[in-house]
Amino acid sequence: MTDDERLPQPATADIDLVTVLHALGDPVRMRLLLSYADGAEHSCDPRSLGLDHLHKSTVSHHMRVLREAGVTTTRVAGRNRFVSLRRTDLDARFPGLLDALLASAGASAGAGAGAAVPVPA
Amino acid sequence: MTDDERLPQPATADIDLVTVLHALGDPVRMRLLLSYADGAEHSCDPRSLGLDHLHKSTVSHHMRVLREAGVTTTRVAGRNRFVSLRRTDLDARFPGLLDALLASAGASAGAGAGAAVPVPA
Repeated sequence: MTDDERLPQPATADIDLVTVLHALGDPVRMRLLLSYADGAEHSCDPRSLGLDHLHKSTVSHHMRVLREAGVTTTRVAGRNRFVSLRRTDLDARFPGLLDALLASAGASAGAGAGAAVPVPA
Repeated sequence: MTDDERLPQPATADIDLVTVLHALGDPVRMRLLLSYADGAEHSCDPRSLGLDHLHKSTVSHHMRVLREAGVTTTRVAGRNRFVSLRRTDLDARFPGLLDALLASAGASAGAGAGAAVPVPA
């Protein structure tokens, strides 16, 4: 049995605010954040994330942006990859920010982030 | 004497979280936010904003992105324009978010937003 590995990600101290905001300033990535907010690990299957209208490579791109910004971590276990939110790291780096963002996303739902994800009719 | 006018801006209820994060996910615009955080009105002169290394049209573009996202308001008085932060509107729309962002920008200074603005040697 081999140890699980992590895909490359910035150290907590290197997480940059502007880079995080840029990562979250996209409706698909905001939707991913809301999926990851439960703290659980998620597979990379677009269907399980409610993004089955997007190409898998598009979803992978968005996941990479989040990981490289320091928002998420990706655990590699064999051929599977599991993504989760770096809540502890983000709370340590930017106290209060993640909670404010998640609360704001809730306030914005309907007219905002939730409705902004393009879904084919 | 004519009344002052405002350049077009979204109503408070129409300020969208993802659009705000996209607006602030840029080092120049984050620097503008920090300048506007004092609550005062600011002229559009790049020099007064510490952005004299950027072309005036570039600074104008960034100001427009902030205004159209609902982050700032621009008052037109004759030939002069004055920009200020929509703190009350942002606090009403997304309680706690602006304070968390400004505190995070402070935490990120040095390695983050502050140092990320390109300045010629």
